[in-house]
Amino acid sequence: MSYSFAAGPARLPDAVLAQARETLFSRGADGAAPVERPFSAPQFRAVLAQAQSRLRALLCLPEGYRILFLAGGAMHQFAMVPANLATPGGTVAYADSGYWAQRAMAEAARQCRVSVVARHGGTQALAAPDLQDWHLPPDCAYCHITPNETAEGIAYPGLPAVGDVPLVADCTSCLLTAPLPITRFGLVYAGAQKNLGIAGLTVVIIQEALLARSPASLASVASYRLQAQADSCVNTPPVAALLVTAMVLDWISAQGGLPAMADANQRKAATLYQAIDASQGFYRAPVAPGHRSPVNVRFGCANTALDTVFAAEAEDAGLHHLRGHPRIGGMRASLYNAMPQAGVDALVGFMAHFQRRYG
Amino acid sequence: MSYSFAAGPARLPDAVLAQARETLFSRGADGAAPVERPFSAPQFRAVLAQAQSRLRALLCLPEGYRILFLAGGAMHQFAMVPANLATPGGTVAYADSGYWAQRAMAEAARQCRVSVVARHGGTQALAAPDLQDWHLPPDCAYCHITPNETAEGIAYPGLPAVGDVPLVADCTSCLLTAPLPITRFGLVYAGAQKNLGIAGLTVVIIQEALLARSPASLASVASYRLQAQADSCVNTPPVAALLVTAMVLDWISAQGGLPAMADANQRKAATLYQAIDASQGFYRAPVAPGHRSPVNVRFGCANTALDTVFAAEAEDAGLHHLRGHPRIGGMRASLYNAMPQAGVDALVGFMAHFQRRYG
Repeated sequence: MSYSFAAGPARLPDAVLAQARETLFSRGADGAAPVERPFSAPQFRAVLAQAQSRLRALLCLPEGYRILFLAGGAMHQFAMVPANLATPGGTVAYADSGYWAQRAMAEAARQCRVSVVARHGGTQALAAPDLQDWHLPPDCAYCHITPNETAEGIAYPGLPAVGDVPLVADCTSCLLTAPLPITRFGLVYAGAQKNLGIAGLTVVIIQEALLARSPASLASVASYRLQAQADSCVNTPPVAALLVTAMVLDWISAQGGLPAMADANQRKAATLYQAIDASQGFYRAPVAPGHRSPVNVRFGCANTALDTVFAAEAEDAGLHHLRGHPRIGGMRASLYNAMPQAGVDALVGFMAHFQRRYG
Repeated sequence: MSYSFAAGPARLPDAVLAQARETLFSRGADGAAPVERPFSAPQFRAVLAQAQSRLRALLCLPEGYRILFLAGGAMHQFAMVPANLATPGGTVAYADSGYWAQRAMAEAARQCRVSVVARHGGTQALAAPDLQDWHLPPDCAYCHITPNETAEGIAYPGLPAVGDVPLVADCTSCLLTAPLPITRFGLVYAGAQKNLGIAGLTVVIIQEALLARSPASLASVASYRLQAQADSCVNTPPVAALLVTAMVLDWISAQGGLPAMADANQRKAATLYQAIDASQGFYRAPVAPGHRSPVNVRFGCANTALDTVFAAEAEDAGLHHLRGHPRIGGMRASLYNAMPQAGVDALVGFMAHFQRRYG
């Protein structure tokens, strides 16, 4: 048995993989497979409506929020968030928690004045930004956070207090991995290829009141307001990606929803972090306890020269895509919703075996 | 046997449908299916490189042009073209050939001053714009045309002379349906869901010299220059859509390339238009001969009250998605590359049968 621990595109649930294989490219009575069907066809509209209501139920999303399914990845939102919510040259607040927060800030800085309101702990104590004492500029259009840093493997232990300023979150690697206090947010977005499906689709959950901010000068496809009016169909949506996301949402619901996802994810993460911490220093997890991501587990050998050997021998043992982000190094095991406990158990077993030989 | 004549998302070649079903969602030795694999993995990079070289060969694309595979649909390009090639508020030239040209113009008008340099023939003589006497503003950044109007079923009989002004074309419904004099163009784009694959991906072919125009203020994902530098991977590309497009390009090559596509498409279109013209006025094709699209064939019953009956009975006979664009009405048979001659023969047979009963 092989497992891929890739950070995204990442593993789909086995049942979704089978369902996609059986249905997406198989023609129906109308001579069209689901990927060949007009997006105006009732079959596609039914799936879209079902995906929205499933996601609404999973998140316990109250009235006053809209769900958008948009083409592209989270980086498209790095630009769309300031373009829709701020005025050109206006002030926006960002918390610098790591690599992806910085990428988001760089895109916002092309349009707005970025005020950095918090910084991560740095290399001494790899941790999320302190949640106290965020001094938001009084005129900032929103405050952006990255609750789970996919590259560094850092997770916020809580949420900052931002008062009346809309809190915007890039939840690409953590949406639907655990219950979310959605009413604390003005906008949440997530690329689909980690916990929601395949690449090419991003989910945006936005407070209805914020839709009025989208300027009329924006491209139609890039306007949250127009996409909400058109039910995410300003133009042909990424049909195949949306169909897979609908399957994933059904699967999560059938497993017991977000509490069940959180339970399973905590168990997997605990298995791996405990194995690292119990290795008597052979393995190290660089992120401070309490700030460790349950879904992107960073670790490495204390003797860093062994990291390359580890990754290569792990592949021979059927444990793949464990190398860390190219800018970060070391190892990273991504344990999203679709990773079974058996995959983590296999990794931990290999780690013990490797330590016996090289420790 | 059922056939879908949908205008897009549209039919895929049978062989591609089978290949996608067998491969996209099946895990390999690394524990990952192609849609679950990191886009930095050598397997995906090899497919991307192969798709580029196949497309380059099919189009006989000379040095000095770049191929981009971008997330989203042609409407994303309606905004990206002016954002990359023109200056805000600058002048751009558009030929108004119909519904989709007008949609492109409306998006450009959000950013630029749109000068309409030619208009289609109107309802009296449904035809492409006259190709003579286009008076381009001397300072226009480019001239945009829509060589095949998907909704009206109009095709340009040739190309306008635009001098040194870069010619930009929305070839969404016609790219790869016939050889293209690519060196006449500065930029060509096409949404994938008609002749190139599934929805969620757009192909852009751009003259390298134009890349320098992309302003530094643009979002990275929306910058032709940065996407070219990153080989279309500024962020995670729409992996599944790209894998399907690679299969379609292989299929077109195996069929004999664009000359073979053009031959088959001309034969299919001739079959259908001849049946309409030989119906002694029972059926009508509203577009002027010489301007009729070979891939989007518009027709209707002379007695328009019969159109609804026709569409309903055609569905019962296994001929689906024949209704015209909602804004246009009547019938439309989309005969893209993947539609076999047998599908057109079945349609023509049904038309004769229908005429015998209602004529």
